[in-house]
Amino acid sequence: MRGVLVLHGPNLNLLGERETAIYGQMKLDDLDHRLVEEGTVLGLDVRTAQSNVEGELINVLHKAKDWAEGVIFNPGGYTHTSVALHDAVAAIGLPVVEVHLTNISARESFRHQSLISPACVGQVAGFGWRSYLLALRALGEILTEGEER
Amino acid sequence: MRGVLVLHGPNLNLLGERETAIYGQMKLDDLDHRLVEEGTVLGLDVRTAQSNVEGELINVLHKAKDWAEGVIFNPGGYTHTSVALHDAVAAIGLPVVEVHLTNISARESFRHQSLISPACVGQVAGFGWRSYLLALRALGEILTEGEER
Amino acid sequence: MRGVLVLHGPNLNLLGERETAIYGQMKLDDLDHRLVEEGTVLGLDVRTAQSNVEGELINVLHKAKDWAEGVIFNPGGYTHTSVALHDAVAAIGLPVVEVHLTNISARESFRHQSLISPACVGQVAGFGWRSYLLALRALGEILTEGEER
Amino acid sequence: MRGVLVLHGPNLNLLGERETAIYGQMKLDDLDHRLVEEGTVLGLDVRTAQSNVEGELINVLHKAKDWAEGVIFNPGGYTHTSVALHDAVAAIGLPVVEVHLTNISARESFRHQSLISPACVGQVAGFGWRSYLLALRALGEILTEGEER
Amino acid sequence: MRGVLVLHGPNLNLLGERETAIYGQMKLDDLDHRLVEEGTVLGLDVRTAQSNVEGELINVLHKAKDWAEGVIFNPGGYTHTSVALHDAVAAIGLPVVEVHLTNISARESFRHQSLISPACVGQVAGFGWRSYLLALRALGEILTEGEER
Amino acid sequence: MRGVLVLHGPNLNLLGERETAIYGQMKLDDLDHRLVEEGTVLGLDVRTAQSNVEGELINVLHKAKDWAEGVIFNPGGYTHTSVALHDAVAAIGLPVVEVHLTNISARESFRHQSLISPACVGQVAGFGWRSYLLALRALGEILTEGEER
Amino acid sequence: MRGVLVLHGPNLNLLGERETAIYGQMKLDDLDHRLVEEGTVLGLDVRTAQSNVEGELINVLHKAKDWAEGVIFNPGGYTHTSVALHDAVAAIGLPVVEVHLTNISARESFRHQSLISPACVGQVAGFGWRSYLLALRALGEILTEGEER
Amino acid sequence: MRGVLVLHGPNLNLLGERETAIYGQMKLDDLDHRLVEEGTVLGLDVRTAQSNVEGELINVLHKAKDWAEGVIFNPGGYTHTSVALHDAVAAIGLPVVEVHLTNISARESFRHQSLISPACVGQVAGFGWRSYLLALRALGEILTEGEER
Amino acid sequence: MRGVLVLHGPNLNLLGERETAIYGQMKLDDLDHRLVEEGTVLGLDVRTAQSNVEGELINVLHKAKDWAEGVIFNPGGYTHTSVALHDAVAAIGLPVVEVHLTNISARESFRHQSLISPACVGQVAGFGWRSYLLALRALGEILTEGEER
Amino acid sequence: MRGVLVLHGPNLNLLGERETAIYGQMKLDDLDHRLVEEGTVLGLDVRTAQSNVEGELINVLHKAKDWAEGVIFNPGGYTHTSVALHDAVAAIGLPVVEVHLTNISARESFRHQSLISPACVGQVAGFGWRSYLLALRALGEILTEGEER
Amino acid sequence: MRGVLVLHGPNLNLLGERETAIYGQMKLDDLDHRLVEEGTVLGLDVRTAQSNVEGELINVLHKAKDWAEGVIFNPGGYTHTSVALHDAVAAIGLPVVEVHLTNISARESFRHQSLISPACVGQVAGFGWRSYLLALRALGEILTEGEER
Amino acid sequence: MRGVLVLHGPNLNLLGERETAIYGQMKLDDLDHRLVEEGTVLGLDVRTAQSNVEGELINVLHKAKDWAEGVIFNPGGYTHTSVALHDAVAAIGLPVVEVHLTNISARESFRHQSLISPACVGQVAGFGWRSYLLALRALGEILTEGEER
Repeated sequence: MRGVLVLHGPNLNLLGERETAIYGQMKLDDLDHRLVEEGTVLGLDVRTAQSNVEGELINVLHKAKDWAEGVIFNPGGYTHTSVALHDAVAAIGLPVVEVHLTNISARESFRHQSLISPACVGQVAGFGWRSYLLALRALGEILTEGEER
Repeated sequence: MRGVLVLHGPNLNLLGERETAIYGQMKLDDLDHRLVEEGTVLGLDVRTAQSNVEGELINVLHKAKDWAEGVIFNPGGYTHTSVALHDAVAAIGLPVVEVHLTNISARESFRHQSLISPACVGQVAGFGWRSYLLALRALGEILTEGEER
Repeated sequence: MRGVLVLHGPNLNLLGERETAIYGQMKLDDLDHRLVEEGTVLGLDVRTAQSNVEGELINVLHKAKDWAEGVIFNPGGYTHTSVALHDAVAAIGLPVVEVHLTNISARESFRHQSLISPACVGQVAGFGWRSYLLALRALGEILTEGEER
Repeated sequence: MRGVLVLHGPNLNLLGERETAIYGQMKLDDLDHRLVEEGTVLGLDVRTAQSNVEGELINVLHKAKDWAEGVIFNPGGYTHTSVALHDAVAAIGLPVVEVHLTNISARESFRHQSLISPACVGQVAGFGWRSYLLALRALGEILTEGEER
Repeated sequence: MRGVLVLHGPNLNLLGERETAIYGQMKLDDLDHRLVEEGTVLGLDVRTAQSNVEGELINVLHKAKDWAEGVIFNPGGYTHTSVALHDAVAAIGLPVVEVHLTNISARESFRHQSLISPACVGQVAGFGWRSYLLALRALGEILTEGEER
Repeated sequence: MRGVLVLHGPNLNLLGERETAIYGQMKLDDLDHRLVEEGTVLGLDVRTAQSNVEGELINVLHKAKDWAEGVIFNPGGYTHTSVALHDAVAAIGLPVVEVHLTNISARESFRHQSLISPACVGQVAGFGWRSYLLALRALGEILTEGEER
Repeated sequence: MRGVLVLHGPNLNLLGERETAIYGQMKLDDLDHRLVEEGTVLGLDVRTAQSNVEGELINVLHKAKDWAEGVIFNPGGYTHTSVALHDAVAAIGLPVVEVHLTNISARESFRHQSLISPACVGQVAGFGWRSYLLALRALGEILTEGEER
Repeated sequence: MRGVLVLHGPNLNLLGERETAIYGQMKLDDLDHRLVEEGTVLGLDVRTAQSNVEGELINVLHKAKDWAEGVIFNPGGYTHTSVALHDAVAAIGLPVVEVHLTNISARESFRHQSLISPACVGQVAGFGWRSYLLALRALGEILTEGEER
Repeated sequence: MRGVLVLHGPNLNLLGERETAIYGQMKLDDLDHRLVEEGTVLGLDVRTAQSNVEGELINVLHKAKDWAEGVIFNPGGYTHTSVALHDAVAAIGLPVVEVHLTNISARESFRHQSLISPACVGQVAGFGWRSYLLALRALGEILTEGEER
Repeated sequence: MRGVLVLHGPNLNLLGERETAIYGQMKLDDLDHRLVEEGTVLGLDVRTAQSNVEGELINVLHKAKDWAEGVIFNPGGYTHTSVALHDAVAAIGLPVVEVHLTNISARESFRHQSLISPACVGQVAGFGWRSYLLALRALGEILTEGEER
Repeated sequence: MRGVLVLHGPNLNLLGERETAIYGQMKLDDLDHRLVEEGTVLGLDVRTAQSNVEGELINVLHKAKDWAEGVIFNPGGYTHTSVALHDAVAAIGLPVVEVHLTNISARESFRHQSLISPACVGQVAGFGWRSYLLALRALGEILTEGEER
Repeated sequence: MRGVLVLHGPNLNLLGERETAIYGQMKLDDLDHRLVEEGTVLGLDVRTAQSNVEGELINVLHKAKDWAEGVIFNPGGYTHTSVALHDAVAAIGLPVVEVHLTNISARESFRHQSLISPACVGQVAGFGWRSYLLALRALGEILTEGEER
């Protein structure tokens, strides 16, 4: 089975606990569980991680080189401010799919600029927790067919 | 079956014929065919349309109010320049999913601003023709469960 | 009687049907009817047109040269993006009054810039369907007295 | 009769005396006289004021709360620079119609930004002294019908 | 006792009368009364003034040189537009504490820029009428200890 | 003979009829006639088209793929606002020469930005109707020698 | 007693040791001690923390949900660059008062923009270590009276 | 003798009393005295005025129409923020020479933009109180020779 | 015969020697030779000059007043940075045609702004050395017919 | 006698010959003559120079260190584009007065930014050739009294 | 021997393993080894550290105060986004030399702005791993001679 | 021996004579002497040149093609304003190392943008005259090993 890292950025540990009107009711553990299950169906060995620390997200991305063939990444608030994460995504040489729970284009203007997107394969945004599911399927097909775009 | 409009914007009639290194080899007819088939699987009555004329895209969106419950929309080059299409998307009151074949964040700077995104439910970008497929599944789930975000 | 063109831009065909909280309850046909009646009172031969297509709006403006002495124009979403409509207004050499249903200064920032205004005589904005009525009276006085400003 | 304040901002005391090619030949007194007369026809008790002092304009607006039901306001050069007048318009809770003699969109770029417009009901611009007349009629209808937009 | 000027800028004369959801229920007279009382406790001779006129605020600041040792200043809407008030604050050579009732960073973008702040000692913002109280205590300590920062 | 499309954008149907002080006295039909004649001299089969509709210009460009080897294009007001036309020019893979009647660098600032130029071979601007003639000769040489730059 | 977190951001561990001309002579431990004492007087259980790591600051904020009723936060250099901290402040749903030792409006331009302020209740800046004391009192009153703004 | 108004803007009443390192030691009364004397030499009836109120400066400018043939104007902090003063200078139709004590180009960036300059004849800046003297001589020559530029 | 100056700006002395992939293989001498020959055919006395020194280009332009009736000018890198050359072009009062070898709109962003264009008659860009030939013919026609636009 | 350099920048050799409507009728030689004469009256040894070459202007400025005590400098078009001239002015350590014939604030926007002003003592602009005369008198007084600002 | 910290920022742990076409083939351990050796030659006690965590880099910089006399720092992606690292460099009061492997001026525009540079002594960029070596020698000379600039 | 050009831009002829607090005490001749000596040690034939004229710097760079294998270039004030020098550096095809005496990132904002850097191999800045020495060693190694990055 192909390894896939699902990486959650800052504040996503609070998923389903706070601001549920914006981010939805599902908790992070439940989401991770669903993604692992869905991974099994798709023949993907899904492993999940979360950190609020920008540098630890970089560390986890670096280590993914050794076992994963693709990454699902929700960079949260670092999406708009981190050149270092952009560089980490570019450095590991794996296809990375950017995910957002909400439609960031319809929120505050400081969420309209993305520094990480240019280094990713593509984006899925606005479908709540289903954004991850769609991204996982997309990544599965990319990995299966070896077609990256 | 629930009606879904798949709407292709300017230059997409050339899909698979020109600039295949960027946009891929699949032709528009074949893509539309696949989307109709996938719709049948998902219990969706998919109908497709394409126009190069901004105002005709508005017309088609307006008419979708009468039969469709959701829209998949690739606004092409109008993504970055059309307030009128933004207003049309907002006016019809249906969930609209924005789709792009390529990762527009990694292309020319005039493709980084989107005027239409704020009126959409969400975006899928960067997976070639599969972007449409993912968007269709996302829309299917939204319509089935009645949860829009 | 002097001819006056009342020209409605994109999405105004939905007037009174959608987003009535923003744009009001009166339908476009009823508005057009009122404007024709008011025209009769003012000695103006009012003819109305609507199109969602930028280029057709240009065509209608061009033809107005042959029969009209003034124009009431609501450019809708094209207000903010169309140099071509600016040029058409400038080209026909008739007094054109710009109309908006809403106070566009109090809405999204992409509605604050107007490309068409510099070629118009003046603006009336924010009074719902009455904006048209005020504009018609203003245009009537301009035409009667031959004073354009 | 409903009270209406017509408030003229800086330099309007020179109306009809200077730069008549731009602002027209009618003097401020004559304009005020016409507006009072027109008010009588419309069932409105029109009272007029002018000041070159930003803070006095704020004072007059504040006092209008006690007797007027609406305001016609030409903020002149303060249109583009005064947050304090914006706040005064917002504070008094009356419908305020912004008026300009000229089409400010066609003049210097420093006249294109308006700080006061977002707090107003609507705008009338470009029709010379008739801009006031149109605004008065619009305000009259708003007050009569109790429909503010 | 050390003299302290509490100076209120434009529209603050309406405090507690209008837009109480934003600015709170306490009236300006009551606030001034509390500040004088608190001043007595802190050994400060508090005198208050309010004007809607930018130049009168400058006049009052200039006169404070003769009797006061510090100033609490809420410049209201002039915060964002007045170089002249900046210069007045700089000219008088007294420690001036800037005060705002609301968290101006969370309001309209034209309230994010402050022209006066660079000439002040510090800011207190967002605590309603208590912002003044906090500023008064801060100023009291600064004056007592002769430490300005 | 090699096919060449000469495509005129919005408002050029009024050439020679309106604003002749800016755009010159020659009518569009006469210009087209001269270009066909000149084409014959140069061994080029010149066919001309004009539309005010952005999307129809895209359609005409797409069809040119089937018969033409090069294009002379005056995008008029769409020069400054159309990503979709940029994409159409890029998509058809033919050498396209951009033409303007006037020196757009010396006109309003909204005419200084060009979205279409980057996809063209080159530009000729400022020589009135002769701009077309120069562009045709340039294109003729490019086609003859097979040297595109 | 009500719990209050006092959180110090990057480089504040050096307080009183370096750049004392700018930041003052009091050491962080002494400041924390004073704040705990003042908390006792105000009936507040003050606990302090410091970290140079953006993500650890987020972690500490998240944990404060479980025991604190309010936060005093000096985000230091992250004030101007961290969307993730903005999101953490917004997520925990507690009143957070932003504190700065210096008058950041009078320093380098990269310190003028604040990404975190919009999610806070208010700001106190420019009074050296007393900024914390003022903020603590303000927070105490907010908590006591249950009035958050 | 020809009348000349010398008009001093905000904070200039403090000239020679405060911030003498920047603005010099001469007091306003002494400066005015010297200018009147110099006027006598030049055959000019110099009258001086100062106000901190923007609108009063406008009033004084308006009245100058009745007796003066030229104006020396130091708009102080209003230089950078007042469209209304620009309009007053333009309205009175007299030659106005702008004066600054300091080299404003070498000070804070908010002093680099001038809204009033475009309506003036010329500028003299950076020579302390001598700036006025130079401006007076320049204006004298302009008036004598009737050459305004 | 009418005199025409062909003026080459900085680095054009290296034409055909370096970066031939961008600028083509023809050397400057050969180009000048061809332009003189073509001039003979067109009845134009073509004289050429090249300099890397901005001020010498100004000198050559000034001297052209005495013998030439028009100028072909490739300002090279000075196109984007020289107000002084703009002023020289404006000062000499001859028709000047701006020429570029490459399509500067498709190159680095610092080549998109032109300071010299507004003072020229028109532009020819993107056709390699043929750009000069086209410009020469255009200038010839302008001179022959005395129609400058 | 104290030495003063009067330095004229690019295109000023054409003074009085071209564009006299903008720059006036006096020729450069006549102006220089007048300035030398006026210098004699003021006890100043005025020597003049002109160059169109930016670097030669730098050279002349450098040499002025050896004999002059002050400089009158009209940088012409280099005013807005030359950091190197700014550095030369700063390097020589003499008081330099910037001069412009016209009111550059009222001309094209590319003339509104000045790179050289911050290194100068002051500016005189808008009085035609008299600007030089005023500047010379100002410099004379500065040198006499040894007060540089 | 004088202590020198060589500090590597985010993603530099991958040096020599990934994107070797951009960053070169030498691994971080080998680079560190060379720098220690070179330090011995120069009489410097070189110690190296690397972290992907912004706050840990701050911690390491803080600790360097206790043993080092200078720092070589490659802030990687944090160069462009970290005010906190700027503040840390400023706080420790040691000479810090900024190093980059690549010529960041020739890469993406988000790498052109540096927030950390203003607090450093100088920069060495573009020489691959040799950038460190050059920086070390420069720092050695600075420390030896006690001349910091 | 390999030839190396050391090229000094505007105002560097004053090195060690003026503004020594900023630029240091070493004179240009002494610096050149040291660089030639150091060149001998490194097996490099160093020749030096200085000019204040932008175009002469271009000329010198062009000639270096014939004898040098690399260039050390301090463009001084032209760093920030010269596209023509950028083009010259790009045209000659030699490795060019950009040098600055000071840390330009810590100076005026108009020194933060570099137009020349993108065409260079790398930069050394902030080490006074040692910047040249470091650059020379770096260039020496590049030339010896034939590794340009």
